[in-house]
Amino acid sequence: VPLPEKALIARIRKIASTSRGPRSLITGIGDDCAVLRPGPGHDFLITTDFSLEGIHFRRDWHTPEIAGRRCLARGLSDIAAMGGTPVAAFLSLAVPRDLEQSWIDRFVGGLIDLARKHGVRLAGGDTAEFPQAVLADIVVVGSVPHGRAVLRSGAKPGELIYVSGELGGSSAAIRSLHRERKGQKIHSRDYPRHFLPEPRVQLGRILREKGIASAMIDTSDGLSTDLAHICEESKVGAEIDASLIPRSRVGKPAHEVDLDLALHGGEDYELLFTAHPAKGVPGHLAGVTITQIGRITRSRKILVRNPKGVRTELHPRGWEHFDAS
Amino acid sequence: VPLPEKALIARIRKIASTSRGPRSLITGIGDDCAVLRPGPGHDFLITTDFSLEGIHFRRDWHTPEIAGRRCLARGLSDIAAMGGTPVAAFLSLAVPRDLEQSWIDRFVGGLIDLARKHGVRLAGGDTAEFPQAVLADIVVVGSVPHGRAVLRSGAKPGELIYVSGELGGSSAAIRSLHRERKGQKIHSRDYPRHFLPEPRVQLGRILREKGIASAMIDTSDGLSTDLAHICEESKVGAEIDASLIPRSRVGKPAHEVDLDLALHGGEDYELLFTAHPAKGVPGHLAGVTITQIGRITRSRKILVRNPKGVRTELHPRGWEHFDAS
Repeated sequence: VPLPEKALIARIRKIASTSRGPRSLITGIGDDCAVLRPGPGHDFLITTDFSLEGIHFRRDWHTPEIAGRRCLARGLSDIAAMGGTPVAAFLSLAVPRDLEQSWIDRFVGGLIDLARKHGVRLAGGDTAEFPQAVLADIVVVGSVPHGRAVLRSGAKPGELIYVSGELGGSSAAIRSLHRERKGQKIHSRDYPRHFLPEPRVQLGRILREKGIASAMIDTSDGLSTDLAHICEESKVGAEIDASLIPRSRVGKPAHEVDLDLALHGGEDYELLFTAHPAKGVPGHLAGVTITQIGRITRSRKILVRNPKGVRTELHPRGWEHFDAS
Repeated sequence: VPLPEKALIARIRKIASTSRGPRSLITGIGDDCAVLRPGPGHDFLITTDFSLEGIHFRRDWHTPEIAGRRCLARGLSDIAAMGGTPVAAFLSLAVPRDLEQSWIDRFVGGLIDLARKHGVRLAGGDTAEFPQAVLADIVVVGSVPHGRAVLRSGAKPGELIYVSGELGGSSAAIRSLHRERKGQKIHSRDYPRHFLPEPRVQLGRILREKGIASAMIDTSDGLSTDLAHICEESKVGAEIDASLIPRSRVGKPAHEVDLDLALHGGEDYELLFTAHPAKGVPGHLAGVTITQIGRITRSRKILVRNPKGVRTELHPRGWEHFDAS
């Protein structure tokens, strides 16, 4: 009987070995640890994210390539939200014994495709057998000049709030997947933000390099929750304008998502950041639209203004991945 | 309804905040990434390890504290095997919605107890809900002077092979757990290497600092498999002497484990290393016994010599965690 763990490591190693390595990675797969050396004057950033079957992806909804790509995208987006440059990734992967080899190859292949695009090397991880589901945990290591990481805690009253791209597209896909009937399969190309997320790595780096962003987070948990994270860590409040929130266009025929999804839907992996009013924030940067949606306030509340000018408090709803609601 | 993920993060943050932080950790839990800065002239080591319920621990066999401690021990042992100093840990933890809060607190508590002992800070991670099992993935970051990590690939023909402590104690516990009958519960104190593993961090560091170890690995997969890893990466062979292998004494009354468990049983987390014959390797170091068990050879085979002097080839059997055999 072949050892599943050993075979899995060998396969991952083989697929990973074709990817180009950054100079920060000294030793990768094939030892007890990877050895990493940041460039002179640089800090390392580290983030970890689960991708669990049934929670973050479903094998009947997501091709292996898409599940693998989304697994890495979650980590890259966290690096982007600090203004960092991703360097290396570590994949822990547990699979049922009877899972087809091709599923694993395609999952790792989708992950490596996105890794290559960002110059990231798959540098290690762990493998195991797990009977009930495919379990992945991705670690991404990034690099940023000493003390220059853009934290959540830097927002100040009077600063303006911006978001990249459009919101609600990923949660709209999940809503549609829940409503799918046989013969009415939705197409991944009609919901690109869910099926082919593009982490905003270049944008995050530029916002940091140009000193534009004072605080930043990625919209993985949904605007209401992620804005609450910035306000909590910065000890400030916020007021946003519902009519200014850029909403994704999804489906066929394409239509704008509901405000509710744009406010609370997660996994869009856009960047939400604050900037001093004197900063000239361009409307487009690194190929992405940037939209001002509100401002930071001294009061600790988060308010949303509707088109009639009525303000109500916005409570973080917290993104529950496959909730059908 | 409280958000389980948010509550989980808050609890982990609270428990973690009481632990002392090393200077390498700039920003921990509460942002998109942790920010880490190695000391001047140092590299970072990174390792990740799953601890999955039903595969690596069982809730009916392991108390939450022991499961949490063993989870971190796996990662610390990998840092030890490179001769590094552990700096920070990242815990990804998924739990069923109905798991008692106290189980999580005790799991994280057991993990943090061991972390404190080694000056390691819990610096981040991820949380999720998973219906069928408790899933943990631990990342440990360590530090080592530039280019001084002890790799698996440094063994040379003629060098001697050493192992710390005793082998087979952890797998003996699993064998006994499988044979448990009601009213005949085994005691964790009779199998300390399984229930209270002590990663050999100080020993690994000393072996690196004194330039003793030319190649090193921890015995997580069992002697036969881990020695094969060293031989494969170093492109050498080995000959070990069965009668020299130090075997754990376990159970009540205490008795020596079978040779088979000492050769193939995993999760003892001892250090297996090679050293030039001219190095004076002491019999005790950092409070642990060191035993010479064989030598590195030019031929690519691994041979084991029985007490009658007969040599047979030793094939790596690969450690399957809860195999009853």
